[in-house]
Amino acid sequence: MSYHFSSRMASLSGTATREIFKLLTRPEIISFAGGLPANEFLPVEDVAQITAEILASDTARKILQYGVTDGLLPLREILTAYVEDVGIQDAALDNTLVISGGQQGIDLMCKTFLDKGDVVLVEDPTYLAILQIFNAYEAKAVGVKTVKDGLDLDDLEQKMIQLKPKFLYVVPTFSNPTGKTYSASNRKSIAQLASKYHIPVLEDDPYGKLRYSGEEVPALKAFDTSGHVVYISSFSKILSPGLRTGVAIGAPEIIRKMSIGKQGTDLHTSNLSQAVTYEYLKRGKLYPNIEKAVPMYRERRDAMLGALEKYMPDEFIYTRPEGGLFIWGEFPVGIDTVKIFPEAVGQNVAYIQGQVFYADGKGLNTLRLNFSTEPPERIEKGIKILGKLFKQKLSDAKNQI
Amino acid sequence: MSYHFSSRMASLSGTATREIFKLLTRPEIISFAGGLPANEFLPVEDVAQITAEILASDTARKILQYGVTDGLLPLREILTAYVEDVGIQDAALDNTLVISGGQQGIDLMCKTFLDKGDVVLVEDPTYLAILQIFNAYEAKAVGVKTVKDGLDLDDLEQKMIQLKPKFLYVVPTFSNPTGKTYSASNRKSIAQLASKYHIPVLEDDPYGKLRYSGEEVPALKAFDTSGHVVYISSFSKILSPGLRTGVAIGAPEIIRKMSIGKQGTDLHTSNLSQAVTYEYLKRGKLYPNIEKAVPMYRERRDAMLGALEKYMPDEFIYTRPEGGLFIWGEFPVGIDTVKIFPEAVGQNVAYIQGQVFYADGKGLNTLRLNFSTEPPERIEKGIKILGKLFKQKLSDAKNQI
Repeated sequence: MSYHFSSRMASLSGTATREIFKLLTRPEIISFAGGLPANEFLPVEDVAQITAEILASDTARKILQYGVTDGLLPLREILTAYVEDVGIQDAALDNTLVISGGQQGIDLMCKTFLDKGDVVLVEDPTYLAILQIFNAYEAKAVGVKTVKDGLDLDDLEQKMIQLKPKFLYVVPTFSNPTGKTYSASNRKSIAQLASKYHIPVLEDDPYGKLRYSGEEVPALKAFDTSGHVVYISSFSKILSPGLRTGVAIGAPEIIRKMSIGKQGTDLHTSNLSQAVTYEYLKRGKLYPNIEKAVPMYRERRDAMLGALEKYMPDEFIYTRPEGGLFIWGEFPVGIDTVKIFPEAVGQNVAYIQGQVFYADGKGLNTLRLNFSTEPPERIEKGIKILGKLFKQKLSDAKNQI
Repeated sequence: MSYHFSSRMASLSGTATREIFKLLTRPEIISFAGGLPANEFLPVEDVAQITAEILASDTARKILQYGVTDGLLPLREILTAYVEDVGIQDAALDNTLVISGGQQGIDLMCKTFLDKGDVVLVEDPTYLAILQIFNAYEAKAVGVKTVKDGLDLDDLEQKMIQLKPKFLYVVPTFSNPTGKTYSASNRKSIAQLASKYHIPVLEDDPYGKLRYSGEEVPALKAFDTSGHVVYISSFSKILSPGLRTGVAIGAPEIIRKMSIGKQGTDLHTSNLSQAVTYEYLKRGKLYPNIEKAVPMYRERRDAMLGALEKYMPDEFIYTRPEGGLFIWGEFPVGIDTVKIFPEAVGQNVAYIQGQVFYADGKGLNTLRLNFSTEPPERIEKGIKILGKLFKQKLSDAKNQI
């Protein structure tokens, strides 16, 4: 049977994300492919206690009943204060929308701004799922060059002028996939360019609270004086991804449109998930639990950096992130991480081919390594296997010349 | 500040649904405007017990972690059997997608099939939120005429041929807004026409389990022999709307596209909501709780029908639904329910103006009355007020002539 699908869907197949989740289910695989918080870090007991109290309270019926699209009022209120921690001052209720995870924030931003054929600027490489979402809106992602401390501002300005993009999408803190963090001055310049050329920015900040070294940097939104930046954050990495909660903060006119878009999509986010998120914040559970998790994540990051130093070929260049979940690496051109991937999995180690993070199919010689879910011993073991495999491939490549 | 919104969003403002929810918060209002399950019916104790057991079990970490887009496997498995109750045989896993409420099923069907300018056929009048969703996809809804036992098959066939719609949307059991139920033979004919003209059907069934009189009728999907019907159902009216869970059943090719669409929207439905829904079904809580709720809803329906008979003007024609949440009524042309609405609210009674359910702005003389949330005494009191108000308006209208 063939169906007349919409043109946006006709060409879409499952993303790499989807296929990756399947790989993770085999226990013998040492997986650096995911982007999950560590199972050990999920606050099961806190959530159990909070949920029991919510469902035994007077508000239980309210939680099980329909809610409003913008989100539970107490949660929205506490979120306006929560974002002060990243330097976003004066957020009010009409700036604040509860979303079903960060992914929904991206989707609603696209829904609000993108028409078929529009251009969106992204850091190159960028979060792979957003490239898939742009396809669904029949929009085109164009990569912006990067420098050490963020985006290449000249390239950004030129592309803002020439391409008239509908918005710029960035993950400026512990970026996915590179692990990079933009400097405060780079953020400020991006906000100024956005204002100058009247181009909205979507700042995606799922990892910002997971810092293992270095100094905190305010959100890009903190430098926004003209209402052009929409800030989205998620509780997936610092509370629970299974609950699907997050927040979008932006100009009231934009938030209002995103809310209307959300109404058509899921009416509202699960009230139970929202209530758990609210109580978790209100009871002051978030930061103590993050403080407990950070040393574990730091140990894993350091184990991976150490193993990369020890086992990977000298030609392999990689990032040294101050937080987040990912290290990004690059081989000399000629090494094809897509082609080598099945061999790595055959040796029970998984990574993600860097190519999927590029807007234009570049990056065959790159890969992304996640360090959050495997214990240090398995990280060492897995990188050792990858090191041997890639050394062999480099040697093969040289012999061919 | 003005922004360059997408063309789909530029013209969209909040729907009637949104404004209605605000009205419902004033306790002095007797509201026939909503579409909510009764608060008393929400199974708070069962959900509390189930949730506590889930979060104390070995699967708790799995529930708080990321899940797969299609839904939790045990829930999908039990749902394939669940839909047998409405006559859908042989549903397999690849026919089955967990959705974040019925609303998301509608959105994903649109995403899968609609391009800008496409036509969708709907019963006239139809569920108001779907008209808003079609706007968001820049598609056009065209109403199909109705007969006593369902759709007017000649009109349907003619419009299938002439307009080449991308799909037909129907709520064939206790329809929103009319409360009508299509006969088995009407359903069978619709399925045959869908197959003949190769036009998918979206069957929305949120109310089917709430039957207070008459005989059960199989789902339209039960008559689908060619994979053209997608069946969606929701747990909002029979378990909890706040959890946001539902199911879509369709041909694997369509379900696969819907799943890809869902991945870009929210990655997956809240695992906690899914796990609660699964345990609620598995423990056999659903049907006993529905059996407890049905007499209460029947009493309210009968209270409203009785009050309509007693208090409304003779010129008022209305449906006598066998289930669901709504009664639909029609005044003689000239009575304008939109204009009268503020006056009714001024007397502390709310209904919904029927016009919002029409694809083309017809129905100024119609209204929808919900009977699920007010107790019988308040239903009687509210209809008495409406009866007096509309009798006065009819008398005014006659005097003008």
